[in-house]
Amino acid sequence: MAPKSKKGKSYSLDAVFLRRFAHILKIIFPALLSRISGLFVLLLVVAVGEQVAVYFVGLIPSNFYHVLPAKDWAGFWSTLSESIMYIVLVASIKSAKQYISGILYVHWRESLTLYIHREYFQSANYYQINILRAGNIDNPDQRITQDVERLCNQFSQMAALLLVSPLTIVTYTYFCWKSVGYIGPLVIYGYFVVGSTINKFLMAPVIDYTYKQEKQEGAFRFKHVQIRTNAEAAAFYTAGPVEKIKADKKLSSLLDTQMNLVNREFWLQISVNLFDYIGSIISYVVVAIPIFAGLYDNADIASLMSKVSFQCMYLINSFSQLIDLSNQISDIAGYSHRIGELLECTQSLSQQGYDTGYPRSDPPGLEDNLLVNYSDRECLVNSSEEPVEADTSDEHSLSSYHGNGAFHLEDVSIGTPTNHEILVQDLTLEITQGKSLLIMGATGSGKTSLLRVLRGLWPLHCGKIRRYMSISQEDVMFVPQKPFLSDGTLREQVTYPYTNNERCTSTEDTRIKNILNLVGLQHIFKRCEGLDTPFDWNWSDVLTPGETQCISFARILYSKPVIAILDEATSALTSKQEEELYQILITQGTTLVSVGHRERLKKFHDSLLTLKGNGLWSLDTI
Amino acid sequence: MAPKSKKGKSYSLDAVFLRRFAHILKIIFPALLSRISGLFVLLLVVAVGEQVAVYFVGLIPSNFYHVLPAKDWAGFWSTLSESIMYIVLVASIKSAKQYISGILYVHWRESLTLYIHREYFQSANYYQINILRAGNIDNPDQRITQDVERLCNQFSQMAALLLVSPLTIVTYTYFCWKSVGYIGPLVIYGYFVVGSTINKFLMAPVIDYTYKQEKQEGAFRFKHVQIRTNAEAAAFYTAGPVEKIKADKKLSSLLDTQMNLVNREFWLQISVNLFDYIGSIISYVVVAIPIFAGLYDNADIASLMSKVSFQCMYLINSFSQLIDLSNQISDIAGYSHRIGELLECTQSLSQQGYDTGYPRSDPPGLEDNLLVNYSDRECLVNSSEEPVEADTSDEHSLSSYHGNGAFHLEDVSIGTPTNHEILVQDLTLEITQGKSLLIMGATGSGKTSLLRVLRGLWPLHCGKIRRYMSISQEDVMFVPQKPFLSDGTLREQVTYPYTNNERCTSTEDTRIKNILNLVGLQHIFKRCEGLDTPFDWNWSDVLTPGETQCISFARILYSKPVIAILDEATSALTSKQEEELYQILITQGTTLVSVGHRERLKKFHDSLLTLKGNGLWSLDTI
Repeated sequence: MAPKSKKGKSYSLDAVFLRRFAHILKIIFPALLSRISGLFVLLLVVAVGEQVAVYFVGLIPSNFYHVLPAKDWAGFWSTLSESIMYIVLVASIKSAKQYISGILYVHWRESLTLYIHREYFQSANYYQINILRAGNIDNPDQRITQDVERLCNQFSQMAALLLVSPLTIVTYTYFCWKSVGYIGPLVIYGYFVVGSTINKFLMAPVIDYTYKQEKQEGAFRFKHVQIRTNAEAAAFYTAGPVEKIKADKKLSSLLDTQMNLVNREFWLQISVNLFDYIGSIISYVVVAIPIFAGLYDNADIASLMSKVSFQCMYLINSFSQLIDLSNQISDIAGYSHRIGELLECTQSLSQQGYDTGYPRSDPPGLEDNLLVNYSDRECLVNSSEEPVEADTSDEHSLSSYHGNGAFHLEDVSIGTPTNHEILVQDLTLEITQGKSLLIMGATGSGKTSLLRVLRGLWPLHCGKIRRYMSISQEDVMFVPQKPFLSDGTLREQVTYPYTNNERCTSTEDTRIKNILNLVGLQHIFKRCEGLDTPFDWNWSDVLTPGETQCISFARILYSKPVIAILDEATSALTSKQEEELYQILITQGTTLVSVGHRERLKKFHDSLLTLKGNGLWSLDTI
Repeated sequence: MAPKSKKGKSYSLDAVFLRRFAHILKIIFPALLSRISGLFVLLLVVAVGEQVAVYFVGLIPSNFYHVLPAKDWAGFWSTLSESIMYIVLVASIKSAKQYISGILYVHWRESLTLYIHREYFQSANYYQINILRAGNIDNPDQRITQDVERLCNQFSQMAALLLVSPLTIVTYTYFCWKSVGYIGPLVIYGYFVVGSTINKFLMAPVIDYTYKQEKQEGAFRFKHVQIRTNAEAAAFYTAGPVEKIKADKKLSSLLDTQMNLVNREFWLQISVNLFDYIGSIISYVVVAIPIFAGLYDNADIASLMSKVSFQCMYLINSFSQLIDLSNQISDIAGYSHRIGELLECTQSLSQQGYDTGYPRSDPPGLEDNLLVNYSDRECLVNSSEEPVEADTSDEHSLSSYHGNGAFHLEDVSIGTPTNHEILVQDLTLEITQGKSLLIMGATGSGKTSLLRVLRGLWPLHCGKIRRYMSISQEDVMFVPQKPFLSDGTLREQVTYPYTNNERCTSTEDTRIKNILNLVGLQHIFKRCEGLDTPFDWNWSDVLTPGETQCISFARILYSKPVIAILDEATSALTSKQEEELYQILITQGTTLVSVGHRERLKKFHDSLLTLKGNGLWSLDTI
């Protein structure tokens, strides 16, 4: 099930956090015996080594208190050289620790992001999350790029400290107990319990506001990206002033939250600072006990004082660090929740398996399952949940089962997934290789929605759809209404969405050049200085909508699908261009399913499906 | 002039940084006597107070070394109570400092972002920067949202420290000199010079990589935003696998840079750590001088040692802080450069004044200037730079000067601003109220480019354009080809780009509802639950392209411009809808300049401009 998250939810350190964090740990530590685990163990070893070195460095003042009041010239020099040795050691170890943390950070970020990429791009999860708002995941892009970064960064900084802290505390408890008796550790422990209770109480509101701030930071950034990607349209509208007001508003609500955070952090900071300093006094109080009890002889009392107060102070310091760590843990909790939500959502989406279109690399047998049916509303026909394989006898190759059929729709009703408004009711339709279909209808009559259902992006309201061909560049290829020009070379635009662009043979090059000529884009080839020149421009800023639609046709010509499903693919072209491009596709032998408005399109199709709104439709032969 | 920035530029601590940073300072400190300056002075006062409190807290150990070895019971209790007082003081002051820094951060971020918004949204600077890549500014959105945040955050954390440091250094130099003579400060100063030289040398490559990392972080984030905004098109293409590869690639080059940064930071860290620790030893070396010289009597030597070593150590600490500050300054330099570049670019754009379309709030006299002319290429007609006012005699109201004229084009040649490919040559044309014009032509023939020139977004290649009407919702309104649906309520969509949406009278409401009915969007009104319900959805995900174009028409009906310039505004609509909408506009009395492909459009227009490619064109009456 998708997580039922409400707006304004607050993230905290609860069981859900532990589960989500454990999930993330599994991802960033792929195996017990891996390079990363090795590095992490090394980090722990170095962190323990650091503690040992720090102990000896901590005794340096005590040594000087031993030799200096005694005016011990030789002792002074040997103490000095010893101290320098310890210092070089501790500096190297600290840097090594930071270096290993850095490497772990990069590796963790890599494996976590790659994992999320895998889940996010699988099936059409990115569609469900972004368009259908599955799981109510806000700003998935920010979660992937920023929250992952911060989680890995903070965790790599604090993981070793968190694990070594108990060890340090045990060691220094022993030292302290040995020097001043049981009262020393007792005072320090009591002090820590009081401190951490107060801090936990003060920290709760800060976690909430940190999360709110993240969300608003994302909304503000998205506003600016929106302007960046729609700069030309905005400029035509002279929309500068109104966009400025909108951006200012987003900024203002973000800064309000930040100000609230500043106010709430004040009390947390007072508490943290107080406990840091009180710790240093407590060490003198503790060391006073054996002195007033007369346990130390007067001769070397300063050196002993320095040593014992260092031991007590370091024990307190370890506890203070734990309190400081709690701050960082609250950040990590926030990031873990946001990343965990995304992971859970992609997981549940993959399990539900809305999407039925798979890339060409998958074996074809896997893809021919029945689309998900809904049967919880007023349907005339009951939907069945069994996959299409259940209907066939022995045959697994489904294309032979149904001749040239691609889709078989039976009493299909289509409604918007959000408010379940019925767009098309009881549609029965066959889409077959060799029989071209034109779909017409007014704006909002459900033309694109029908394609969404065929593609498997929307669930069916009720009815049955059987699919006998794979959705891929070879079989059924969809050409969306809003064309998408990703980044990449001109070759990658034409071969899109093929993933393998390494076949740069000269035959392949000639083929692509011919296709560009056919669709009238020879000038683009010139402008791009070849097929493989890399650019940092944004293709959709460089090409006009008409050129973009020509690219869409080039993609069909390159992929040669059995059936091409075109959603208003020629709306930005002249009638002459439209006619030429359709003619080329028909010559190539591609069966067309077109959504369009122009009457002239009829001559290229065998039948016409008219969507009339309010669920009504008619199917005629042309 | 726009800054001539190359790719792969490296940012450093140079004169340019100082100039850019001074510019930013002017923005975040708007006046000498402002609330912010007052707060900043308060921050400085608190920072000085902190230093005083820290001095007394630093003497606490010395006091304990005085009373404890002497077993002075009464002295112990008075020292303890005194210490607690100092500690409460220092904790409160530290928190107050952080609190004031936080407030300053929020205010600085506000004023700097608002300033950039003002510059960025002025004229069509955002268009020049994003589409024409003026000044070669990468990721302007990231600079505005993220770099500003980090600059203000870091600067608010370190500003007080940076300013109080000299004071602290002078004070502790005096203490140190008084306690151990001139040799003390001399050793410490020499030590600092060596340390800072080595650190500066090790820091240079880190600055470069930090900048590279920022840039790649931005590219990675943009990739994800691109997927977020094109999720449906990508899903139709089953582009998941190829988009995953692309996102993985961007991640990989980002992580490579981060790994390089980790490697380079290792040496910097070793150096910083070493100097931190060596400092603590130097204080004992310095305190050894008077002891071995026999300047202190033996009685209270431990207490004196503690006091002097604290003074020396704090002097060293102040220097170490300066070295640490240099790290932060390098970050601030990077952010200042990126923000400074953006500011310089917007400034030079505003001075060049490409854009001539202003929002309605500006006085009309200001807007009617001549568009920028280019005359550096093979032009038959020389361009003139004088504004149109120079041609008129006394009249300032230019509309009366030329009757109903809106644009007068004389021998205009249009070329792309990037590679100066000529699209239209020697075009002479009059656009006048009451005479509708249809512009036709194949893809890439320059139809939209002509509109860009009319709108003032592109510079003229050569020729002259005079404009006699303002570009605003009342006079000449442009409707771009790619419709832009900003965030906001349904009312804001219809009234877009009006900035004033507070006229929610019932007459106004009825008017908007009538308009929605006229363009056939009554169902949207229902779906939105009224005009003013706020949403967090993305309008372009919710509306189909056809509905979006209906919104465009609703905007024209709402604004009632004299002339509406429509760029393929009906490509996603049925012929019936198209006809109805054009009829409504004509009834309203709006003169139309349309770019379109359909022959049927001709009957709504008086003349036809055909762009034939290669600069050729013809103008006919219909």
